[in-house]
Amino acid sequence: MTTVLFAAPSLWPEYQAELPKALAEAGVQAKVVIDAAPEVVDYIVYAPSSPLQDFTAYHRTKAVLSLWAGVERVVGNKTLTQPLCRMVDPGLTEGMVEWVVGHALRHHLGMDRHIVNPGHVWDPTCPPLAREHPVAVLGMGALGAACAAALRALNFPVTGWSRTEKPGCLHGEDGLRQALASAQIVVLLLPKTPETENLLNGERLALLPQGAVILNPGRGALIDDGALLAALNAGHVGHATLDVFRVEPLPADHPFWTHPRVTVTPHIAADTRAYSAARVIAENIRRGETGEPFLHLVDRARGY
Amino acid sequence: MTTVLFAAPSLWPEYQAELPKALAEAGVQAKVVIDAAPEVVDYIVYAPSSPLQDFTAYHRTKAVLSLWAGVERVVGNKTLTQPLCRMVDPGLTEGMVEWVVGHALRHHLGMDRHIVNPGHVWDPTCPPLAREHPVAVLGMGALGAACAAALRALNFPVTGWSRTEKPGCLHGEDGLRQALASAQIVVLLLPKTPETENLLNGERLALLPQGAVILNPGRGALIDDGALLAALNAGHVGHATLDVFRVEPLPADHPFWTHPRVTVTPHIAADTRAYSAARVIAENIRRGETGEPFLHLVDRARGY
Repeated sequence: MTTVLFAAPSLWPEYQAELPKALAEAGVQAKVVIDAAPEVVDYIVYAPSSPLQDFTAYHRTKAVLSLWAGVERVVGNKTLTQPLCRMVDPGLTEGMVEWVVGHALRHHLGMDRHIVNPGHVWDPTCPPLAREHPVAVLGMGALGAACAAALRALNFPVTGWSRTEKPGCLHGEDGLRQALASAQIVVLLLPKTPETENLLNGERLALLPQGAVILNPGRGALIDDGALLAALNAGHVGHATLDVFRVEPLPADHPFWTHPRVTVTPHIAADTRAYSAARVIAENIRRGETGEPFLHLVDRARGY
Repeated sequence: MTTVLFAAPSLWPEYQAELPKALAEAGVQAKVVIDAAPEVVDYIVYAPSSPLQDFTAYHRTKAVLSLWAGVERVVGNKTLTQPLCRMVDPGLTEGMVEWVVGHALRHHLGMDRHIVNPGHVWDPTCPPLAREHPVAVLGMGALGAACAAALRALNFPVTGWSRTEKPGCLHGEDGLRQALASAQIVVLLLPKTPETENLLNGERLALLPQGAVILNPGRGALIDDGALLAALNAGHVGHATLDVFRVEPLPADHPFWTHPRVTVTPHIAADTRAYSAARVIAENIRRGETGEPFLHLVDRARGY
């Protein structure tokens, strides 16, 4: 019987059921505990914020498996001589695709007027088909590419834009202008860098067709908030559904909360999910037990 | 130059731009008119409700192309000796898939609490992944199968149920009980027949897991409305999003309009769309001009 120490107390409620289930599915005979003498621990499931910071006594431990993608807070720990693996969660991409496709379809179908319909208006005007509703995805990394593929599978004509040249994507300033000019829905999935900050400013918002919708599950700083509010007030931008903000939680007095053309979602588009993360952990323990190489092993010199 | 008489006046605003565009795309040199001497008309684009009911003078006309799928009102017209084609619109399936996937994701992601959030609640609890959220599709004809495929592509575990035996589907009464017992979302896409009327009655609704969501874009009569309202009031059914009703438009005093757990959409899930229907018409005119057989030619004896 393999002993797995779950050393991330705040995450225990989420993983208490999922991790044993995932281990059983992976065919690993293991018990998961939240407290154990160091000398019996085979694997440590870890969060860099964990109280456990001294790994010296864990001689038997074959690997420390982080639940976080970012390991910068633990990678320099001198007591950590065991292999360290970071989290690469397929659930994060899946969650992002679900949020983006869901909100794209919500705006495409004009759902809000049916969800909130105090006048009980029966207006059987059909929405257009997705194939008549162009989408631009700004940022074509792993997440952007997955969202573009899912939207295309539903017939949305998707233009991908990337800061740097990529096959099948527009790029550069001219490409951005072209992507914005034809997009009924714009999805922001760029990383936050000095180059992408305020990418959607007043000038670029003005390039969008009248009534375009903005979905931002990427980074709050990609949008100039003031310019967006002005474009929403003018009716030029039809709606903005925003999952990320410069300050989170979004402050109570921020105008996004009360703007009739803004939907706030509380940074839920992509997160590590217990379901899929537990399966990544279980697969690594299975590998450890059968002597196969660990997935997502951290290179200590490189730091990730 | 081919002359196409558009003899469905009420639909002209929708097709005025789309039909010439579709003909040009199909490589047909044609003019579309809403009035012409019978002797110059090559094709008639038709709706069975059209004022044109006497086809005697249209000697030159190679085909009458219906914009409706149902042709029962014209198929017995003795003056109609020209070939008659009915509409088989791929846009209808696409629209249905978009409505079903959109509302499935809406409920899956719990969007309503963000769309209507007067207390400005910031609760960053992530929704589950689609792969944790089982869907049952009742009725696995062309529309049901297309919806099931699109939902599976987004990782929803989908159980299909069909009244009669079909590969990969549950069927029969036992299969129905099994499909309902595990479904967080139930999609109704059965035809209306004496066997399917009130299929979702009180007894079958009781089989659903607590909080399940019902999507009905099929036929209003599939559901026992009173039993559904009772299950919604008891909180056993979490929400019902309904596109079809026993009486349409839904009467102003129907309790569905005001029930907090019901969303009414006004029979918009699937309709013939000008975009795709114009392309079906244009393809048939192209076929007529090149001597290829017409698509969706009506068998007058069979009546469809």
